[in-house]
Amino acid sequence: MFEIIKKDKDTKARVGKIKTAHGEINTPDFAPVATAGAIKTLSSQELKEAGVQFILSNAYHLHLKPGKDIIEKAGGLHKFMNWQAPIITDSGGFQVFSLAPLRKIKAEGVEFQSHIDGSRHFFTPEYIIELQLALGSDVMMVLDECVHYPAARDYTEQSLKLTIDWASRSKKFYASRDTLYASQIFGIVQGGTYTDLRKQAAEQLLEIGFDGYAIGGLSVGEPRDLMYEMVNFTSGILPENKARYLMGVGVVQDIFEAVENGIDIFDCVVPTRNGRNGTAFTSKGKLTVRNALYAQDFSSVDPECDCFCCKNYTRAYIRHLLSIDEMLALRLLSLHNIYFYAKLMKNIREAISKGKFLEFKKESLKHYNVIAK
Amino acid sequence: MFEIIKKDKDTKARVGKIKTAHGEINTPDFAPVATAGAIKTLSSQELKEAGVQFILSNAYHLHLKPGKDIIEKAGGLHKFMNWQAPIITDSGGFQVFSLAPLRKIKAEGVEFQSHIDGSRHFFTPEYIIELQLALGSDVMMVLDECVHYPAARDYTEQSLKLTIDWASRSKKFYASRDTLYASQIFGIVQGGTYTDLRKQAAEQLLEIGFDGYAIGGLSVGEPRDLMYEMVNFTSGILPENKARYLMGVGVVQDIFEAVENGIDIFDCVVPTRNGRNGTAFTSKGKLTVRNALYAQDFSSVDPECDCFCCKNYTRAYIRHLLSIDEMLALRLLSLHNIYFYAKLMKNIREAISKGKFLEFKKESLKHYNVIAK
Repeated sequence: MFEIIKKDKDTKARVGKIKTAHGEINTPDFAPVATAGAIKTLSSQELKEAGVQFILSNAYHLHLKPGKDIIEKAGGLHKFMNWQAPIITDSGGFQVFSLAPLRKIKAEGVEFQSHIDGSRHFFTPEYIIELQLALGSDVMMVLDECVHYPAARDYTEQSLKLTIDWASRSKKFYASRDTLYASQIFGIVQGGTYTDLRKQAAEQLLEIGFDGYAIGGLSVGEPRDLMYEMVNFTSGILPENKARYLMGVGVVQDIFEAVENGIDIFDCVVPTRNGRNGTAFTSKGKLTVRNALYAQDFSSVDPECDCFCCKNYTRAYIRHLLSIDEMLALRLLSLHNIYFYAKLMKNIREAISKGKFLEFKKESLKHYNVIAK
Repeated sequence: MFEIIKKDKDTKARVGKIKTAHGEINTPDFAPVATAGAIKTLSSQELKEAGVQFILSNAYHLHLKPGKDIIEKAGGLHKFMNWQAPIITDSGGFQVFSLAPLRKIKAEGVEFQSHIDGSRHFFTPEYIIELQLALGSDVMMVLDECVHYPAARDYTEQSLKLTIDWASRSKKFYASRDTLYASQIFGIVQGGTYTDLRKQAAEQLLEIGFDGYAIGGLSVGEPRDLMYEMVNFTSGILPENKARYLMGVGVVQDIFEAVENGIDIFDCVVPTRNGRNGTAFTSKGKLTVRNALYAQDFSSVDPECDCFCCKNYTRAYIRHLLSIDEMLALRLLSLHNIYFYAKLMKNIREAISKGKFLEFKKESLKHYNVIAK
């Protein structure tokens, strides 16, 4: 289901392909986040046109609203949201564990109260697979406990035991069920910031056997260097012939670092959240379109960009829309940022294919941390 | 600039054409409202694809944000918002007079405080023309005082004197200026709910001479029958060879009544505001998509509709989006309602052309006031 097409000559970066029932994902690639079945402000058609290959949705949110039954009756999430390309779904582990103190972990599963209405729910590893099968997910994730930073070693160790036990139950349950499509199941490597626990987690998950492996529990407040250390270490001990997924990471410099270390897929709210806050990613750096500086700037958000927003609208117009709280601005900037990410990932794939990854990385990062004008 | 193409055999309805520098408006037609330079949630491209021929913007709002200078520097409103079809602009009379007690009427003009930041402004009839010229409006309106309902006869009479004086000054100023495009200027018939004052207003405006005539000050709280009486009376005394514009009216049954009495163009926030509130206009009546009834309804909003929303999404999906406050739902329903209005107006034009207006009206209104399922 995962095929390596080209390995970088200088680093562990690789170009590959994840094959799903809804088409292929050329990797490395980045999934915008359709938390509850929609990429905020955007239609499925716009995503497709922007070059998005796959999206991530969240089992926790979809369980609460609209609920498993409705999506099942719709014929799955692809039909429900009219998105015919691959969908990967997160198990909700991260969301549920963010609910503390509204949740209680038991060996059987986790009990929690909805962030929406306070209603009580119980997630077991088995139910989460059942739920993702009902969604028709192309790539589903096992229920895990996401340990926050900093976490004591004792707690992390104990938590990992639970996560591995749940992974085992998830796989067993998954293997016993018919799937709506030819789906895939990924294990999630936890272990906090302890390399030996990460190693143990990876080994135990490999023993259970999954179609691919995610690295979870990072980008949760730890220093950037520590995150890189964990990504690089963990990626290095995962099998080469399986897809590697770095969860919740989406800052451009982090993507480059992770790709360099063999990561294949990413998801993050960075492009869409920034767009809704009035910030655009451009070929010259970050642009705070809301800034008064652009009130009379009739150039496009990124003169080097070919997206719908940049082909049709100016900074001055979008700034005006932001200043009157007009949703169209949020749409245009979200779309631009998603296009920017899709193109960046395409360029990364091309750079690896041409043996020029490090060169492209260096060139790109020159512009990344600067403020565009 | 206005040409009658076909008169209805049974009523005063007519099919015509308003020619502008940005193309023709086939009438009768309806303008969605781009108050401050955007139809809320929608792009200019979507409007065009939905069949919108022209839009209305508001001088009052654009004066406050982004201001005359910025739009002038952008090369006019068409360029600013990337809308290449006709734009008509309201003078802001209605908005300013809604600001009471934050405004003070003088013979010279009207002093008011911004609804946004309380800053002080002074609108004269001349400035309002200057402003609309800067916007590059295709059809601009004179500054008027919009009298609310109910208004005493004395007040209405006195107010009308001012409105006529301002209309005269507006025309004089307009005639003295170069225009960015071959623009047009419309007078606005006021006179409250007094037919003799409406008559006097129409006669005095005709004497001044305008490219077309608007009927203002209606749909401001008066009973529907009284509104119809005023529209029918006023339309009847306006010259046949000039376009007639009923301002701020957009409820479907009112449109039919007014078209029947010779009105050519309309504007109203009804389709967009309803869309943002979760209500869709359909061939079977109004549909409150937010209703729990549709949680598992996988049909389109209007199975007889060909719009982007109806071709791609279901009631259940849109209802889900509404329940999570997702903007995409507001976009889809706004677009659907605008498409519905554009198609309705096209059908009205076709019905008049075929001599079947009354038949089409009767058939349409059967469905209008019912709740769709």
